[in-house]
Amino acid sequence: MIDVSTAQKLVMSHCSINNKSVEVSLHDASDYVLAENVISKIDMPPFRQSAMDGYALHVGDTSTYRLVGEVKAGDNSNLKLNTGEAVRIFTGAAVPDTANTVIMQEKVIVKGGLITIEGALQTNLNIRPKAEQIKIDDIALTKGTTIKGAHIGFLASLGVTAITVYEKPSIAIVVTGNELVIPGNPLSFGEIYESNGAMLAAVLRELGYKSVSVLTVKDDYQCTKKTLKDTIENYDLTIVTGGVSVGDYDFVGKALNDLKVEEIFYKVKQKPGKPLFFGKKGSASIFGLPGNPAAALSCFYMYVYSHLKKMEGAINTNLLSISMPLVSDYTVKGDRAQFLKAKIVDGGVEVLGGQSSAMLRTFGEANALVFLPEGTKHISKDQHVKTIVLPTK
Amino acid sequence: MIDVSTAQKLVMSHCSINNKSVEVSLHDASDYVLAENVISKIDMPPFRQSAMDGYALHVGDTSTYRLVGEVKAGDNSNLKLNTGEAVRIFTGAAVPDTANTVIMQEKVIVKGGLITIEGALQTNLNIRPKAEQIKIDDIALTKGTTIKGAHIGFLASLGVTAITVYEKPSIAIVVTGNELVIPGNPLSFGEIYESNGAMLAAVLRELGYKSVSVLTVKDDYQCTKKTLKDTIENYDLTIVTGGVSVGDYDFVGKALNDLKVEEIFYKVKQKPGKPLFFGKKGSASIFGLPGNPAAALSCFYMYVYSHLKKMEGAINTNLLSISMPLVSDYTVKGDRAQFLKAKIVDGGVEVLGGQSSAMLRTFGEANALVFLPEGTKHISKDQHVKTIVLPTK
Repeated sequence: MIDVSTAQKLVMSHCSINNKSVEVSLHDASDYVLAENVISKIDMPPFRQSAMDGYALHVGDTSTYRLVGEVKAGDNSNLKLNTGEAVRIFTGAAVPDTANTVIMQEKVIVKGGLITIEGALQTNLNIRPKAEQIKIDDIALTKGTTIKGAHIGFLASLGVTAITVYEKPSIAIVVTGNELVIPGNPLSFGEIYESNGAMLAAVLRELGYKSVSVLTVKDDYQCTKKTLKDTIENYDLTIVTGGVSVGDYDFVGKALNDLKVEEIFYKVKQKPGKPLFFGKKGSASIFGLPGNPAAALSCFYMYVYSHLKKMEGAINTNLLSISMPLVSDYTVKGDRAQFLKAKIVDGGVEVLGGQSSAMLRTFGEANALVFLPEGTKHISKDQHVKTIVLPTK
Repeated sequence: MIDVSTAQKLVMSHCSINNKSVEVSLHDASDYVLAENVISKIDMPPFRQSAMDGYALHVGDTSTYRLVGEVKAGDNSNLKLNTGEAVRIFTGAAVPDTANTVIMQEKVIVKGGLITIEGALQTNLNIRPKAEQIKIDDIALTKGTTIKGAHIGFLASLGVTAITVYEKPSIAIVVTGNELVIPGNPLSFGEIYESNGAMLAAVLRELGYKSVSVLTVKDDYQCTKKTLKDTIENYDLTIVTGGVSVGDYDFVGKALNDLKVEEIFYKVKQKPGKPLFFGKKGSASIFGLPGNPAAALSCFYMYVYSHLKKMEGAINTNLLSISMPLVSDYTVKGDRAQFLKAKIVDGGVEVLGGQSSAMLRTFGEANALVFLPEGTKHISKDQHVKTIVLPTK
C-alpha cells in the first residue's frame, strides 16, 4: 500500500495532456485553459489618459493659463496647446500631446477664461502613461492560464473577442452496485438511492466541465466490462465508483484487468479512500473511487481534480492550500493519513463531526479538507495544519 | 464620506429579499438557494448496513458458526438466523435483523461450511446503524442553503429529485462612456475598448447568475435616463459603471436623481472605489461602480456580492475571510481603507504589484483581497491581515 504523496505524484506523472485546441468567444471563455499565449494588439491604455477631472497644460513659468477648449472622454481631438494655454479635461480623456500635466479641478480657480493654479506646479500629475498596463506585441496572458472573469475583462480591454483554448476532457462516471436505485423510484429492503453519480456530475459541472456522462451498471461482470470498454475508448477520463475491492461480487477490478488497463496503483494508506484505484490505458485515465459518497468526494478533490486540470493543460493544478490553526484538539484513530472534512471559521479551521466515509451530510457544511500526514496521533488546539480550500463561490 | 463598515451595513440593511420561489430538478440545482427546508422522506441508511465484507451473526457463546447463506448489496432478503448460524455478507448489504455484529473476513477462518472467529467476539461491529445520517421526517437541508455538489449528492441519497429554490435576481449592467468601443471594432485616438460589462457579466455567470444583461450608453442625458428607467423597472439589480462623479459630462447621477432613486450613500472612504454609489427605488437596487475596471471589480466583491446573496435568500452572504500573515512589509499611501489585490502563497498572503484602480491585469493573478482598515500606515512582514478569498474553482 503506497502513501498519499507517492499516489499523488503517480497521478500527475501518468497524465496525458490533451493537446486539442478550439477557439471560443471571449464571452464563453470562463473556466477554459488558454492553449496559446495571447499577444496584445494595442498599447493599453492606447494614449496618455487623464486620471482626473481637471485641466491639462504644459507647465511653464506662470501659474495662470488661458482656457482654449475641452477634452471629454472619447473625444478624438488632439488639441495643440501653445505656451500659457490649458484645456478642461475629464477622467479617461486623452491628454493632448502638447500638455505634460493634469491639475485636478479642486486645485484650480477659474475666472473669465483664465485658470489660476494654487500651489506649486508639477509635471506628470494625474496622467496614466500610454501602455502603462501593457505594450503592443507583449504577452497579455500566458498559455496554461485558467480563464476567469478578471481575465475576460482584461482581454476585452485589449479588443480581444475570441481566444484559443484546450478542449475540455470528456468524463464518464460509472456507478456500480445492485443496491442502487435511481431517485424517484421506490426503495425495497436492502436498497439505497444512487447519489455518487449525481454528486460527481454536479461537482464537475460546477468546475466548468461540460462533457460529463453518468452510467449505472448492475453487479454483473459482462455488463461492467462492456460499459468500461466503451467509456475507456470514448472518454478521456473514466471515474468508477464502488466495486473496486476484493468482494466476491465486485467486478470492476476483474473487468479492468481483462480490458488491459495498466494498474498504476491500488490502495493508498489514507482515510477515507483506502481502496483508491488509478490506471491508464493509452491516453485514457481510469480512477476507481470508493463507493461511499464522502470518501469518493474526498478522493475526487485530492486526486482527480489535479489530474483533470493537468489533462487540460492548466499551469495551476492544485486547490488552494493554506496553513491554519485548529480551533480545538483532534485525536487520530489509526495511523493512516487523514483527509478530514473541515470548516474555516473565525480564528482557524474546525474539524467537523461525522467523518465516517458514508457521511455525505457533513460535506455540505465543509469548505475545506484538513490533511494530517500518516502517523499523526494528536493535534492540539492552535497547532497549524494543512488546510485545502474547496472550490467556493 | 462614510467608512467601509457603515457602507457595507447600509448595503445589507437596504436589501429587498426576493421571495419568488421556483422548483428546479436536483440535477440543475447548483448555485440556487433553498426556499424551504428539505424534509427527509426516508431513514438514511434505510436499514442496518454492513460496512465491510465479512460475516453477519448473532454473538453467542461459541466462536464457530454454521454458514447458512449470503447477502449481497442490494439483496432484498432478510434471512432469519438461528443460534450458531452466520451469513456471508458484503459491504453495503442489509444486515439481517437477527444478526448483531459483522466480523470482517480477515478475522475469520472458513472451513467446510463453518466459520471460526479469531479473537474475542463483540456485538455491533462494522454495522452502520439505520438512520445514522438522518431520520425520516427530519430536516435534511435548511432553507437559505446555497446548493453545491455535496448537497446534491446528499439529497439524491434521500431520493429527492427536485427542490424549491428562490428565483435568481435579474441583473442589468449599464456601461457608460463615449470613449467605449465594443471589441472587434477599430479604436480611434481617445477611445478604449469596453471591458467592464464583459468582465462583470462573466463574473456573475461564474457565480451562477443566469439573467444578466449588458447595456451600453453614450454620455447623453436622455439616453442614460431612458436606459436606467428601463433597467430599474425590469431588473432586480442595476449595476452602472462609470459616470457617477461630478464631471460635467457624467449624467448618471443626474438621471438617477430625476428617476427618484433614493441615494443610500455616495462615496466611501476607501481605495479603490471612492466614488461608489448605492441607491434604492422600491425593491430595485442600484449600484454605481467606478469606471476603472479593477476598482469596479473590487467594489463588486466587497458590496454587490453580499447584496446579491442576501437578495436571493442565502444564509451565507459573505466571501470566505481569513486572517493571514503578510509575506512582506507594506506601506499605505493616504489614510483611506484599502482593498489590495493579493495572492495567497506558501506561508501567507502577498500584496501584488499594480494596485492602480485601472490595473485589471493584476486582478487576473489575484486570488484574494487584503483589507487594511482606515488609518493603517504600515504593516510589517508576518503581521496578520484580513484576507478575503475570491471565488475559486
